[in-house]
Amino acid sequence: MAIRAAVAGASGYAGGEVLRLLLAHPEVRIGALTAHSSAGQRLGAVQPHLLPLAGRVLEETSAEALAGHDVVFLALPHGQSAAVAAELGDEVLVVDCGADFRLKDAGEWERFYGSPHAGTWPYGLPELPGAREALRGSARIAVPGCYPTAVSLALFPAYAAGLAEPEAVIVAASGTSGAGKAAKPHLLGSEVMGAMSPYGVGGGHRHTPEMIQNLSAAAGEPVTVSFTPTLAPMPRGILATCSAKARPDVTAETLRAAYEKAFRDEPFAHLLPEGQWPSTAAVLGSNAALVQVAHDPAAGRIVVVSAIDNLTKGTAGGALQSMNIALGLPEELGLPATGVAP
Amino acid sequence: MAIRAAVAGASGYAGGEVLRLLLAHPEVRIGALTAHSSAGQRLGAVQPHLLPLAGRVLEETSAEALAGHDVVFLALPHGQSAAVAAELGDEVLVVDCGADFRLKDAGEWERFYGSPHAGTWPYGLPELPGAREALRGSARIAVPGCYPTAVSLALFPAYAAGLAEPEAVIVAASGTSGAGKAAKPHLLGSEVMGAMSPYGVGGGHRHTPEMIQNLSAAAGEPVTVSFTPTLAPMPRGILATCSAKARPDVTAETLRAAYEKAFRDEPFAHLLPEGQWPSTAAVLGSNAALVQVAHDPAAGRIVVVSAIDNLTKGTAGGALQSMNIALGLPEELGLPATGVAP
Amino acid sequence: MAIRAAVAGASGYAGGEVLRLLLAHPEVRIGALTAHSSAGQRLGAVQPHLLPLAGRVLEETSAEALAGHDVVFLALPHGQSAAVAAELGDEVLVVDCGADFRLKDAGEWERFYGSPHAGTWPYGLPELPGAREALRGSARIAVPGCYPTAVSLALFPAYAAGLAEPEAVIVAASGTSGAGKAAKPHLLGSEVMGAMSPYGVGGGHRHTPEMIQNLSAAAGEPVTVSFTPTLAPMPRGILATCSAKARPDVTAETLRAAYEKAFRDEPFAHLLPEGQWPSTAAVLGSNAALVQVAHDPAAGRIVVVSAIDNLTKGTAGGALQSMNIALGLPEELGLPATGVAP
Amino acid sequence: MAIRAAVAGASGYAGGEVLRLLLAHPEVRIGALTAHSSAGQRLGAVQPHLLPLAGRVLEETSAEALAGHDVVFLALPHGQSAAVAAELGDEVLVVDCGADFRLKDAGEWERFYGSPHAGTWPYGLPELPGAREALRGSARIAVPGCYPTAVSLALFPAYAAGLAEPEAVIVAASGTSGAGKAAKPHLLGSEVMGAMSPYGVGGGHRHTPEMIQNLSAAAGEPVTVSFTPTLAPMPRGILATCSAKARPDVTAETLRAAYEKAFRDEPFAHLLPEGQWPSTAAVLGSNAALVQVAHDPAAGRIVVVSAIDNLTKGTAGGALQSMNIALGLPEELGLPATGVAP
Repeated sequence: MAIRAAVAGASGYAGGEVLRLLLAHPEVRIGALTAHSSAGQRLGAVQPHLLPLAGRVLEETSAEALAGHDVVFLALPHGQSAAVAAELGDEVLVVDCGADFRLKDAGEWERFYGSPHAGTWPYGLPELPGAREALRGSARIAVPGCYPTAVSLALFPAYAAGLAEPEAVIVAASGTSGAGKAAKPHLLGSEVMGAMSPYGVGGGHRHTPEMIQNLSAAAGEPVTVSFTPTLAPMPRGILATCSAKARPDVTAETLRAAYEKAFRDEPFAHLLPEGQWPSTAAVLGSNAALVQVAHDPAAGRIVVVSAIDNLTKGTAGGALQSMNIALGLPEELGLPATGVAP
Repeated sequence: MAIRAAVAGASGYAGGEVLRLLLAHPEVRIGALTAHSSAGQRLGAVQPHLLPLAGRVLEETSAEALAGHDVVFLALPHGQSAAVAAELGDEVLVVDCGADFRLKDAGEWERFYGSPHAGTWPYGLPELPGAREALRGSARIAVPGCYPTAVSLALFPAYAAGLAEPEAVIVAASGTSGAGKAAKPHLLGSEVMGAMSPYGVGGGHRHTPEMIQNLSAAAGEPVTVSFTPTLAPMPRGILATCSAKARPDVTAETLRAAYEKAFRDEPFAHLLPEGQWPSTAAVLGSNAALVQVAHDPAAGRIVVVSAIDNLTKGTAGGALQSMNIALGLPEELGLPATGVAP
Repeated sequence: MAIRAAVAGASGYAGGEVLRLLLAHPEVRIGALTAHSSAGQRLGAVQPHLLPLAGRVLEETSAEALAGHDVVFLALPHGQSAAVAAELGDEVLVVDCGADFRLKDAGEWERFYGSPHAGTWPYGLPELPGAREALRGSARIAVPGCYPTAVSLALFPAYAAGLAEPEAVIVAASGTSGAGKAAKPHLLGSEVMGAMSPYGVGGGHRHTPEMIQNLSAAAGEPVTVSFTPTLAPMPRGILATCSAKARPDVTAETLRAAYEKAFRDEPFAHLLPEGQWPSTAAVLGSNAALVQVAHDPAAGRIVVVSAIDNLTKGTAGGALQSMNIALGLPEELGLPATGVAP
Repeated sequence: MAIRAAVAGASGYAGGEVLRLLLAHPEVRIGALTAHSSAGQRLGAVQPHLLPLAGRVLEETSAEALAGHDVVFLALPHGQSAAVAAELGDEVLVVDCGADFRLKDAGEWERFYGSPHAGTWPYGLPELPGAREALRGSARIAVPGCYPTAVSLALFPAYAAGLAEPEAVIVAASGTSGAGKAAKPHLLGSEVMGAMSPYGVGGGHRHTPEMIQNLSAAAGEPVTVSFTPTLAPMPRGILATCSAKARPDVTAETLRAAYEKAFRDEPFAHLLPEGQWPSTAAVLGSNAALVQVAHDPAAGRIVVVSAIDNLTKGTAGGALQSMNIALGLPEELGLPATGVAP
């Protein structure tokens, strides 16, 4: 019997990607599609790539519209999920692609988002220690942010293995879809093509506390994070370049061994063969995360680079992967591990 | 029982796309992968996006390596398919992504390709009148060129309905993957980003006789084609802008009706709703072709624009769609109708 | 003594390009910079590439702010120039980058722009027959549209020489800056990268009557134009592919000779050597127009392709070139004929 | 009297950019243009954007061809400059865009380049402490690498002011022209569009010792550098994100003050106003370097981001700026401080 899924925020990039993946999921039937400013329009008018759903009409987001489904995906602006989720019963699996339920520390939430903390849900990054278990049977899932997904996959094995000092330095490049579909002048094609530019420098990005939370949990001690996001001239993809001082006895071999162990049984997180480095192009539309590591003895640091598709593994793919786990389905079901290249 | 498929030319763009689609096909098991200069390498080294096949090793292309499969896809440079195909028996379905068996007129072949004509196989564009029937049960398929796919889908309904004068003017923009993976200076990223440039102007492109063949067949009279291909700064996609003088009694309504009729039962060729125009972005990685039509009474012409992914519907997707038909499988089986956007 | 120049609409793409070129003009001193919604801001906040003017503050556009200059460039939305120009005396050279004064036929203006026709000024495309003479000493200049610049340069020599039938078919690809700086969803980087898409198909684009006007004047008879503009994934540049039926006695040689003659003494319009085709990349930031021609005897057509930078030769460069002529300065003064490549 | 300049390696990206800038330099007359594999061709065939030089013919690189000029620019592959320079007398100013004469430490040269060290020339980054003085009247100039230019401008003020611990972590994104014009598969447009990927991770990039040399000199103590270069989907530009642990008493104010002081009198290195961050798009084709700083007290680090055009300030612009100084001309003469945007 099919799982009936609704998507709130179906007109945006995250919602669109959830739908793209749901269309390929063999156990899911797509139910209500809701939106706000696009309500009343055909989906084909705002998401022309979702051809099989082109004739579906967007409803206004409401608890009524979302009722009667087995799974509800919330792809709403940050801060709007809590109210909607509160009206959905515990018999419904609610998968929140927004930030509302990611952080454990209410103070950090309030400092970065400026509103009361709504709570904490099981965290949809199954590769993290303990995360998969917490997702099993859960009725609520907080999908990680796209940057924290890339960064946590890159660094948790080093921290879990005690190979790195608790001071991470991260520079990540993201495709423009990470900034959403709202029309802003600095996101115009004319502005972003040919442009690399940073933003939120110096600790201001809202994904920083989420990274600190994940890396500190892996390390068993507080990890500081210097995080600089940059906007890259491509629609999708995150390349995260992460480094930390190596602990005294680290070698290229012990480093590699830690990642081989961490990813050995993972269906989507891959350590590349030696000498091959990740590229965002290889994971376009794929739920895979590609990782490579290096030890730089002259600088005394380990360097880990990861590549994901910010909308797939970084949002919608991670959401479906977690849904599969929560519902007891095979974790890889319906999810692409193959990128669309070139 | 699974269909066992081999791919010759697995290191190139066409071969890679065949493999990407085969990986998602529920009835196919991927057998031998062959190449020439990359033989001996892991597929992961040359096609890092095909993660599930990363550990497979490329064999040298030969009849021996390709033996023992139910289907063999040939993604070889033009002129090399005939020799390989000759060694494969009639019990094997041979799907040629190259040009060797597309043209009916030996003279035209020799004029554009400079070598003896190898023959003509059933043509893998099922949407054309009579094509689907010719593919059923065939052991040989000639996959159309990417430009002829986009152009023929755009114009055959108008010609079949007698709405256009037999003088087509076509300007098409193609992503750079259409030019292949061989490293040439003018295809460097530094050269193509920010660049629109034409090539093969004035009738010199090898796809021109193939378009003439298709459009003349639809029209029932010889159609001349002025074809200007241009290289666009994107990896994939073809946007074909096609026009012809309108026959005297054409109206916007009769024009639209002809396309509605032609595409009514087609799983992959779509006439967009009025007012919506095709974009290559909407078909990235998809087997769909999006078409829209206009009548310009002031200029006395009909204008038809189509968008496809040159590697999917324009090559590998068309190949698998035709394979499905030849083998008696559901035509849409395993093929994406959804693009990867944004 | 320096020429004092003001720019109205200095926050937009056209205004910014006028300023970029004025900064390099040896005889010009930049005076007032005005804008509307950005008034009060530092120019550096909205045009960070114009570093030498970063500290200048934008004033509200008004006759007072623009008074006291020798030249005033209007880079305003279509329909707003006439009111501003009316307040500037005849002793001031007014160069309008908008559409208001381009068309001679009031009916065509009203049909495409929906407002009363403001008049017709000398047309700033000096390469057209008679245009240079009309610009000398004029106090008013109507800068052509970017598409009409590319198309008219491509086709006027053929029409002036009587080589083409009066039915032009034009498909042009433009960089996204041609659509302006107003934030619209379909112009987001996420939407345009990887995308080729048409718009205004079937005669609806406002530049069509301007092309008809120019080509008909060159031909000495009415020329119909089928014009399809497409949006290309690049910030700047226009590639115009133009064709028309060849008159009976045309050959490759007569065709080439007509263009050699038309461009022989032109400083910015160039016929490329045989075998070399124009690319938008070669004219980035340059005032040059590159043109190449072909005769396709099988299709019975001539094909001409031109490449310009829509903001330079297509707008601001054409404006300064015309200003130089109007003021009796050397036509090339301060204007780049060199592109920024790769 | 004009300075007569020759360019060796005129067919490549660095040589082409030297020529683009020389064309705009009021005191320079362009003499011999030499190349190797392109010798005998018209420059227009390989550098179509350099229209005013299109008809010039490339000579084979040799001491004879380069003789008789006042300035010779060498834009040759690394390791080839020394031999050519040795044949040019001391009365000629030789400006080497290659790496041969940048490093002071012969051991580091040999370790990274694998050939004997040719010597050390005055270093063409005038903004560095003492560099401008060393360039005055010099007959030899070693133009810095593009990455070291971006990184040294970003970090030398902090090190010179004693604000940062001697352990720099740098992640830089470069446009593809930094990888040169030789056709390699991974540099194809199809591969690089949509792709962010790292290379030379873990200390292996040849620009690392040059950065260490510059930063250590500024700091007055050895600085370690963790440097990760990444390839970005754009033709030009470098965005360097640089950080280091802050010394104990650093504040946002002391940090900013150090950069204001360092760049106060610099014509091309700019500290942006607070709140504005650099973008490569703003410096396309410009000799400007844009820098912004942040203090992240939670991570205990300073973060400095710089943007340059790798071919302009990062190569050819720096070369001409240094030439101006060496010849006693105004430092800014003929150099653009304005980018080509959007």
